[in-house]
Amino acid sequence: LFSSVNGRSNATIDLADRGLAFGDGVFETLLLAQGKLPFLSLHLDRLQLGLDGLHIEACRQNIQDQVNQCLAQTSKQQFLNGIVKIIVTRGQGRGYLPQAQTEATILISAYPLPELQKNYQRDGVAICICQHRLSYQPALLGIKHLNRLDNVLAALELRDKNTVEGLILDDQGFVAEAVSRNLFTVKDGQLFTPDLLRGGIKGIMQGIVVEQLAPQLDLSVNTGRLTPQQVVNADEVFLCNSITGIWPVIRIDEQELSPGPVTQSLQVAAQKLSASLLENQ
Amino acid sequence: LFSSVNGRSNATIDLADRGLAFGDGVFETLLLAQGKLPFLSLHLDRLQLGLDGLHIEACRQNIQDQVNQCLAQTSKQQFLNGIVKIIVTRGQGRGYLPQAQTEATILISAYPLPELQKNYQRDGVAICICQHRLSYQPALLGIKHLNRLDNVLAALELRDKNTVEGLILDDQGFVAEAVSRNLFTVKDGQLFTPDLLRGGIKGIMQGIVVEQLAPQLDLSVNTGRLTPQQVVNADEVFLCNSITGIWPVIRIDEQELSPGPVTQSLQVAAQKLSASLLENQ
Repeated sequence: LFSSVNGRSNATIDLADRGLAFGDGVFETLLLAQGKLPFLSLHLDRLQLGLDGLHIEACRQNIQDQVNQCLAQTSKQQFLNGIVKIIVTRGQGRGYLPQAQTEATILISAYPLPELQKNYQRDGVAICICQHRLSYQPALLGIKHLNRLDNVLAALELRDKNTVEGLILDDQGFVAEAVSRNLFTVKDGQLFTPDLLRGGIKGIMQGIVVEQLAPQLDLSVNTGRLTPQQVVNADEVFLCNSITGIWPVIRIDEQELSPGPVTQSLQVAAQKLSASLLENQ
Repeated sequence: LFSSVNGRSNATIDLADRGLAFGDGVFETLLLAQGKLPFLSLHLDRLQLGLDGLHIEACRQNIQDQVNQCLAQTSKQQFLNGIVKIIVTRGQGRGYLPQAQTEATILISAYPLPELQKNYQRDGVAICICQHRLSYQPALLGIKHLNRLDNVLAALELRDKNTVEGLILDDQGFVAEAVSRNLFTVKDGQLFTPDLLRGGIKGIMQGIVVEQLAPQLDLSVNTGRLTPQQVVNADEVFLCNSITGIWPVIRIDEQELSPGPVTQSLQVAAQKLSASLLENQ
């Protein structure tokens, strides 16, 4: 529906772009709702962390300007709800060592939400535990970079197992995240979410739950390591991201779970927050 | 000088290609010499291993046909010496889970050799030991995939240290490879090269040294783990890849080394092999 490369609409990327050659860049996938991006500044913060971590220089204002250009275009087309994706790569160049004067490539695109995720918020989802484990790489911790084969290989297992999501373990066998979402458990009225110290991406919605929604509801949140058995034994389990919100988990492999009151109250709080962000933007 | 996407010359790749979005693909970088690709079949074998490992379906004959089309074009342009790069991605698609019917994207490009690597075969190179260590991911071992941030981050150190190559250690601190090359040491007349069981890519030239050149010269080759100290204490150290051949190492960080007779005899043998491959192709 919309795409731009360094501000030029419908431009294409060079075959020598380092994003394609090496996955040498970062990205963000943002919810477009009512023509607005309610979590834009949080996404830009995480993008900046990743750019710093990879030593890629790209001007935040420049990125934001190109996002605004995208919003202007999609609004004109009456495309108000969907996804806006930002990719920033280190730019063009051959060989692993970048040229010192390489200019970053900024790609903005907008496209519709996938169709199938309609009733998962209400009905919950069945998930599996993936066999594929996260790579261990301390230098890339927390960076939403373009080296995403871990998530792709885990996602391939969902097809075989006929589930819409799956938990990915870190190299030591602790639960880190789901393929496209973060994980929370509820046990004895307390929230728990993995600390992601050996892999996985700290989610925007995960941060909102921890820092805004849980305090609002007087829920305490613990972070740390979580075994698959601890997840299966939790009172409630839910997945979340900023695109599709909070999904209750109703089955993990063979183990049935019920959606519970804590998950439900967080869903209500998340919807209220989204509504107020959209109103005030 | 030449580029094609799925057989169409000067085509561009889609912004939704999974190669860009996730590094979801594999690649090979081939020496073009006298209008020929002396190691083509070895590269296609490794490419196929990677495609199988990532569960990407792409027809080898199709890839080979597009490489041949590239060679026909570059010959017409009298571009006879340089690099031909093959990238195969899983194709287009949004989200980590690929659509079942996704068609792979095959990208072929040809471009000149970098200028600066003229006298390294003769004079040797000074290298460093990089701080950045390889990711540990058993599921991707040996696959020359597009998730190459490890090599990029290690390469960034070369700029600061002003060396043309650097050794990368695996997560356990053993020497795995160099940024764009494989490593051999010579000690007491025997060759040693890392077994790459925790990361790194088995090189085409590394394989040729082990399987063809060393036996020709009655040299035994051992593989296994190698500490940085063992490398520094070796009688001779050399790096190799199929583009730039064998480079003697003359300094590692502060430690001076001398190019030696074993490295030199392997260089002669490699040049003879290349010449005979080019003659018989």
